[in-house]
Amino acid sequence: MFNEITGGVCAPAGFKANAAWCGVKGKGPEKPDVALILSEQECAAAAVYTLNRVKAAPLYVTMEHLENGCAWGIVVNSGCANACCPRSHESAQAMCKAAAAATGREPEDFAVASTGVIGQPLNIGAIEKGLPGIAAGLSEDGSGVTAEAIMTTDRSKKEIALSMELGGREVRLGAVAKGSCMIHPNMGTMLCFITTDCAITSQLLEEALREVAAKTFNRVVVDGDTSSNDMCVALANGMAGNPLIEWKDEDYQKFFQALEAVCTHIARAIAADGAGSTKLVTCRVRGARSEEVAERLAKSVVSSDLIKASLFACDPHWGRVMIAMGGSKAPFRPEHVDVCYRSQAGEVLACVRGEAAPLDMDRAREILAQKEVVIDVDLHEGEEEAVCWGCDLTPEAVLHNGNYRK
Amino acid sequence: MFNEITGGVCAPAGFKANAAWCGVKGKGPEKPDVALILSEQECAAAAVYTLNRVKAAPLYVTMEHLENGCAWGIVVNSGCANACCPRSHESAQAMCKAAAAATGREPEDFAVASTGVIGQPLNIGAIEKGLPGIAAGLSEDGSGVTAEAIMTTDRSKKEIALSMELGGREVRLGAVAKGSCMIHPNMGTMLCFITTDCAITSQLLEEALREVAAKTFNRVVVDGDTSSNDMCVALANGMAGNPLIEWKDEDYQKFFQALEAVCTHIARAIAADGAGSTKLVTCRVRGARSEEVAERLAKSVVSSDLIKASLFACDPHWGRVMIAMGGSKAPFRPEHVDVCYRSQAGEVLACVRGEAAPLDMDRAREILAQKEVVIDVDLHEGEEEAVCWGCDLTPEAVLHNGNYRK
Repeated sequence: MFNEITGGVCAPAGFKANAAWCGVKGKGPEKPDVALILSEQECAAAAVYTLNRVKAAPLYVTMEHLENGCAWGIVVNSGCANACCPRSHESAQAMCKAAAAATGREPEDFAVASTGVIGQPLNIGAIEKGLPGIAAGLSEDGSGVTAEAIMTTDRSKKEIALSMELGGREVRLGAVAKGSCMIHPNMGTMLCFITTDCAITSQLLEEALREVAAKTFNRVVVDGDTSSNDMCVALANGMAGNPLIEWKDEDYQKFFQALEAVCTHIARAIAADGAGSTKLVTCRVRGARSEEVAERLAKSVVSSDLIKASLFACDPHWGRVMIAMGGSKAPFRPEHVDVCYRSQAGEVLACVRGEAAPLDMDRAREILAQKEVVIDVDLHEGEEEAVCWGCDLTPEAVLHNGNYRK
Repeated sequence: MFNEITGGVCAPAGFKANAAWCGVKGKGPEKPDVALILSEQECAAAAVYTLNRVKAAPLYVTMEHLENGCAWGIVVNSGCANACCPRSHESAQAMCKAAAAATGREPEDFAVASTGVIGQPLNIGAIEKGLPGIAAGLSEDGSGVTAEAIMTTDRSKKEIALSMELGGREVRLGAVAKGSCMIHPNMGTMLCFITTDCAITSQLLEEALREVAAKTFNRVVVDGDTSSNDMCVALANGMAGNPLIEWKDEDYQKFFQALEAVCTHIARAIAADGAGSTKLVTCRVRGARSEEVAERLAKSVVSSDLIKASLFACDPHWGRVMIAMGGSKAPFRPEHVDVCYRSQAGEVLACVRGEAAPLDMDRAREILAQKEVVIDVDLHEGEEEAVCWGCDLTPEAVLHNGNYRK
């Protein structure tokens, strides 16, 4: 139904991007730290934000600017969170003003985001100085450098684009994202910028984004902390020329599925890139009485440090899966539960109806040694299911998180 | 008000204990794995249990046996959790039966507990064979070996006893405990056995235990998982001869405070012994609008892997303290918050009114390098406060938790 294409956020018609090192990171020109994404035409705009009570200034400024459901672009820096520091609100406003001056638009046309260390003042002068050059270099090849510019502790660049047919026209979606630390469900989550040339109202764009985020970004757990700065912004400029989506019709469903595919890709990429991790862990809970129960149980499995440590050690410690689910307060009957471990190397059933199944330990270790491991739990109580993503916990993750500021 | 004394669970009049290796652990005679605590007279008995939905069989059997508020003793094994395995209920009952046969009492006179690996069947035959010898060796010097017998991954033995004057008589309390892994609030928590010769009704003993557990054990976080097996049992045999405590009078208050002192000591010892940890972390949140808010915020601080990793690295990463509190959903105003780090080496103020304070980094690192570190948060919003305990997160903890079964 969708084709994966290249081009990231610049794949949809009418979007350009660029990024460069301005000096926020203080690490030299090989590390871009400020990026700009701009549309040729006004976009329907929507965003979801962190639910952390401590919200960075850029989030408040973006909320204000997107209140009318319209925007033209996004300006973002890495290296500094612009949170819990003096003049953070003024700095976030100044970033929009500088982006507007460099592109001939208004400050209110921009969403603004920051990511990096909390509590240090933002070097706004460096950003103001750098933005005209970045704007001058905006191009349809700029998605890659933009994806790089928002990386902090990420080990890999996160970028994707899809195309599909909608109302007789080719419609495209693209995204760049960052996030490998402080990722936890129940928030608008990490930084993700989604562009599309689909014609859709800002109301439906927001509804779709909110619903998709709940099923994708909010089901990723890396270290259990949420961030003050996380947000996901979607811009739709309508340049594909498809009939405007203004009802929840078939076209909306198709757009929704494409958005879900984009966000699922990003969510998995973020989980796989969990700081210091060695593997992507997917927990699928099925046979549940409701999707909510399945989600709460799956989340508690991918959140458990003990399970994460045992997966690093390739140990099929299904007792910890039982205990993590039991601690979640979601209702289920332990004596009905099957636990199965799966990967491209095969699958083993470790627990049947709440008790140990005969287990070939060497086989289990081989299965758990793969880059992607699935913990498949069957509650045998209903028809609903949910999937959550996480990663293993390693000694390197601890060292990494301890030394983040050094 | 209280004097710390020696003797552990055998310090109160009329209590004896003993333990030995029976073969549950399979590690040889130097590791005792079954213990017995017995009173000369019938005791008022109370217990609190894990809130995990997966509860081991010994908990259900103990609930049944303590229903009448009376007991004579406790039988316990380490090395096997007797949970999620075949015939676990029968095995827990058989342990009580064997303890009764060895001591001339009834099975219903015993609380029973197990700790160890989940999913493996209990070697009940070995326990039945060993209990007569353990019963024959019951002594007033048996607290130490009992404390050893319940250790699993614990690095240190947990034991305490206090004496005080109550109604003109000397009253004593003693406790042994285990717990260094799968410790998390919201449960009856880990294994802790408390003895006292105080005369108190089982109703008031239970009320006191429940209230004290909420302020002590339930405020300890080590790795965020709860266990299927955790419980705390208190036995009061009345042999001190104090006037029976049957109202919430002054004597009750005094007993309550002694019980709180015992449980606080154990709670701190458990936090300090967190698997692989290097330091005890205390988070005190004060200036809160309610104790509940203070507790939720303090718990989220000691639960944060990112904060725990930064404490291992001796990094005063107060931004993570803000973020962890912000993610807790408890109400507070970030812009009012002060964060101070304290230890026996001194104190540093890292954050004032939500923003960075000028920080001498070398000084801060010295303070955070101590064996006990306090994170002191002032919300400046009220008069209430709460204290929670935890530990740092180290690469060793991850290796340890990954290799637990090997």
